[in-house]
Order: sequence, then structure tokens, then C-alpha cells
Amino acid sequence: MAEQENKKGPAIHPPKADELLDMAIIGGGIAGATAGIYSGRYLLKTALFTKTKGGAILDSPDVENYPGFITISGYDLMNRVLEQAQHYGTLVVNEIIEGIEKQDDVFILKGSSGKSYKTKQVIIATGLIRRKLGLPKEDKLSGKGVSYCATCDGFFYKDKVVGVVGGSDAAALSAMLLSKYASKVYVIYRRERMRCEPYWLTILEDDPKVEFNYNANVAELKGEEKLEGVKLDNGNELKLDGLFIEIGSEPSTDLFAPLGVEVDKRGYVKVDDGMKTNIPRIYAAGDLTTGSAGFKQLVVGAAEGAIAATSAYHYAKKELKDTR
Amino acid sequence: MAEQENKKGPAIHPPKADELLDMAIIGGGIAGATAGIYSGRYLLKTALFTKTKGGAILDSPDVENYPGFITISGYDLMNRVLEQAQHYGTLVVNEIIEGIEKQDDVFILKGSSGKSYKTKQVIIATGLIRRKLGLPKEDKLSGKGVSYCATCDGFFYKDKVVGVVGGSDAAALSAMLLSKYASKVYVIYRRERMRCEPYWLTILEDDPKVEFNYNANVAELKGEEKLEGVKLDNGNELKLDGLFIEIGSEPSTDLFAPLGVEVDKRGYVKVDDGMKTNIPRIYAAGDLTTGSAGFKQLVVGAAEGAIAATSAYHYAKKELKDTR
Repeated sequence: MAEQENKKGPAIHPPKADELLDMAIIGGGIAGATAGIYSGRYLLKTALFTKTKGGAILDSPDVENYPGFITISGYDLMNRVLEQAQHYGTLVVNEIIEGIEKQDDVFILKGSSGKSYKTKQVIIATGLIRRKLGLPKEDKLSGKGVSYCATCDGFFYKDKVVGVVGGSDAAALSAMLLSKYASKVYVIYRRERMRCEPYWLTILEDDPKVEFNYNANVAELKGEEKLEGVKLDNGNELKLDGLFIEIGSEPSTDLFAPLGVEVDKRGYVKVDDGMKTNIPRIYAAGDLTTGSAGFKQLVVGAAEGAIAATSAYHYAKKELKDTR
Repeated sequence: MAEQENKKGPAIHPPKADELLDMAIIGGGIAGATAGIYSGRYLLKTALFTKTKGGAILDSPDVENYPGFITISGYDLMNRVLEQAQHYGTLVVNEIIEGIEKQDDVFILKGSSGKSYKTKQVIIATGLIRRKLGLPKEDKLSGKGVSYCATCDGFFYKDKVVGVVGGSDAAALSAMLLSKYASKVYVIYRRERMRCEPYWLTILEDDPKVEFNYNANVAELKGEEKLEGVKLDNGNELKLDGLFIEIGSEPSTDLFAPLGVEVDKRGYVKVDDGMKTNIPRIYAAGDLTTGSAGFKQLVVGAAEGAIAATSAYHYAKKELKDTR
């Protein structure tokens, strides 16, 4: 964890998880953590529930586009932001929330540990779930050559041959990282050229380890006990030790759909410009919302978290007659 | 300036100010600087025009609510973000833009130095002009007890005595927030009673920490190195550690009004969720827009800058057939 000097005296004392919370934040990515900073600063009794310290950005070894850091690892950035939320009294609880129920004016959150938590307001910041190729043997070979996280697994492919499926920023970041370890990185993408940030594409195109397989899809995964290669739908075969699948992600609606939270066709939570959902006292922030023109970047998720917490604070003052 | 290690090799070579720019960003606050990071990373030839390195936040000695830094000065933060923009090739030009004209498909920017600049697209990020009291020493004591942002600076006045000048919702919100920290909050307002939302006024009137000084204006700021108090025009004197001036702020529309950029009643630039104005190839970001529910915070301005640059990049690809 990056050490940060605390010039401002001790943190505000955090709430206990079993008292009635003013605010429960579900998700420990940049949106949730920033909501935690703001909610804590507004002196709302806040708990943030997350299974990992950090969200999608934990996969990024080098974050370069978050304003304030020319380069920082996703891990370090998230540690800093979560620490900042804790500094303002937000309690970070290592718990997966599996269900939310409304009882009168209180929401009951069911944790995977069996515990329940009561809260007046909720910010959903659970992010997105990674998409799979949908091929036979994909689940079986997952963790045996097939991976969805280059940051997590890239290190195991030192001097090996790997493939990356996808053309997005995430795919580019994975390919860049893998090229540090692997002897060869094949990029496999269905379109004519990667659609990632041009700057990243120039880096990849200048990298002698990287070879592009455009206009191609993975048709078949080879290998039984572990991945041995792939067959593409243009007939080519590649011998691979690892395949990193970076074809996007989608919101998981299981948690909040039962509450009647409105989503768009693709499952993204509809929010207004104050990050309010259609259900009073439920807000959403980060990658799973329709906000910010759907633009998914760290700084945007952070802003949405700040806005959600501010809307909740105003609601607490005005509607819940909270005297803080 | 905070030194930042550059792990990624030399910066992209910046454009020359006299060539046709892909992007001109007007304003060097957090919104403009973040737009500069993104625009540079998109390989758009970008110049950022500003008279100061940093915007409104330069007034804040201790920024605590920007995610990633438990505490950082506005000056250091802005240096870091502007440096990051320069790292990606954005040219920072020390120049006040005094006029914008459209000639065919190009915008001509007139600088106060007499120079002109040509650009395909523009992001307006000129922020707001804070209304000041107009008193001697007001500028000198700014950041030394005199503040224009309770959300930014209120936390530093734990157990201190503060004043709030103004009667608006913003003044009420500031007073409410300050009462959490301070031992005493004097509201100083020129009329008979605050004109904020009545509910907020009831909260303030029930708050034993809050004392109202109505029908009064600040006549004099006391203190040399830091604020020590104020003298009111009714003859009363108040000993204060901090004075929060909340008499409003407003966008300056002189620059873009002649182009037909649509604004709301109060002069804020109307934007969609992609930060586009009604004029193609003109975007706006930061405090002067109607975006993000009007919530004015660093991280929100940064996000708006990122979104504006992204919209411009997509426009360049699609409409200007830019091949980058």
C-alpha cells in the first residue's frame, strides 16, 4: 500500500456495520471508493461492501490517464482512494452483498457471510462482469491457459506464447502487459484494426513481439488438460500457452433488479444527472450506469461516485430530515 | 512542481501553435488540463490556452476530496495534471484568448498577445468568475482564512470560528457544512433574512452554533498574514479564523456568446452528456457547464474534460475523417 502522510489528524471514527447505516455503498472500485470519500466527508454513517480492494482497474499495471498520476498501478491507486474513504470514517467491509430487500424505509443487505446490514440509502457501484467467448471447453480450460485477467495471470507466461482476443482499450492494455513477459503476443480481433486508444495502438504496432490477426475470431480451443492453441475462423491455427479473453463486459443486474431498479436494453442502470435511479434512495455510479454518455474511464467513475454521494446527502438533509 | 517519474519514454512531440490545430482547449483548470491529457493521448494536435497554470483550485492550499490524494495543494495537483497533458504532446500556451471566430470549417482564436491560432475543434473550460467582496486584502488573504468553497476547505476549521457571507442556497449549504466542523458559524447577510430554501433555514436557525448577522455587510478584513476577523458596516466586529464568501459566481460568456453557443438563464453553457454544445465542434467542460447536475467539484470537472475530449476525438474520426 502506498503510504500517504496524514496531515489532518486522525480519521473520523467509522460506524459499526450492525448499526443502522446512513449509506451503504456496494462495490469497491473507483466509483464506490470515491462515493465513500464524499459520503464520509458529509458525515453520513457509511459502509462500503466489497470482495476485493479495488475494482476493474486492479487488472491494470499502469494507469496513465487518471489525472494526477503520469503512471500508477491500478492496485496502488485503489489503495490510495480506499484509504482516503476510510480516513473520512467510511467502513470498508470485506463482504459480497447477495441480496437487497426493502422493509418500510430501510434497505436490508444480505451478505455472503450470513450477516445482514441495514441502511437508509444505497449506492450501487458493482461495475461490470467480463464476457466469455462461449466456446466449448472455455470453462474447463479457464485457469489452465484461458484467462480473463492479464494482470492477474500474465506473470505466469514468461517466455511463452500467448494470444489476446479483442480490440478495446482493455485488450490493448493486456497485450502491452503480456509483451513484457511473453516471447510472442498474438492479437486476435474480428475487425480490421484495434479500436483502442491510438497511442496504445502505436506502442503495440512498434512492438516486435506483437503480431496482429485481424478479421478473425477464435473458432476452437485446442487442448484437454491445458490450452495448447486455437483455431481461427479464417482457418489459421496458433500454438499458444495462454489465451487472454478481453471481449468486453456487461452489468450484472441480479442484485438490484428485484428492487425494480430500471435498466436499459443492455442491462445498464438508468440514472439521471444526479446519479439517481428510479427508486428513491438508490443511486448508481460507475461502469454499470447509463451516465456520462456511457464513457467508461476511471475519472468518470470517480465523478459519478462523488455525484451520487452528494445527491444522497441532499436527500438525507431534505427528505430524511437528517440534522447533520 | 512535483517530480513525476516518466516510465514511458519521452513525451509525444507537441504541435506548434501556428499550425492548424486539431483541438484548442481554452482554460487551464482541472477540466481543461484533463481534456489535454485525453486529447493528447488521442493523438490530436492540441494546444491549451491559459493565463494561469491551474484554475479556481489554485486558491485551495489543501485539496482533500480529489480521489488519490489524502491532501495535496491545488497548485501541486494542477502542476501534475498539466504536466501529464504536456507529456502526451498537449502544448500549454500562456495566452488569454479574447475572441473566437468561425471561418469556414476552422475556428480562429485571437490571443491577447496579438497572435491568432487556427483549430478544427474547441473545448471551452474557462470556469466561473467568483464574485468577490471587493475589499482591500481580499486577494492577499485568499487561502489564508478567506475561502470561496466550504466543501473544499471547511474541514480545516474543526473547532474554529468561521463566518459565511451570503444568503443563497449555496451560502446555507456552506453554513450547514461548516457547522459540522466549526465551533461557531456567523452568517453575514445584507438582507433581513437568508433567502435560501426555508427548510435549510430552519436547520440553521435551530443550530446553536449558528448566529445570524442580518442587514450587515463586511466592511473590512482584519489580519495581515492570515485572517483574524471582520468589521461589519453596522459597526460590529467578529473574531474569525475563516470567512467563506458565498455571494455567487458566474460564467463569463463574452468569449463564446458571439458564436451562438447556447446558455441557460444564468449564463451556464448548455451541454449534452457528451459535453457537446449546440455548435458542432465546440464542447464545454467544467464549472461553466450545465452538466453533472451542476455539481462543481474537481473530480467532476476532470471527468467532463475527459468526456469532452472523447466526444471530439469521435467526431474527428467520424466526421473529419481523421485517420488517427
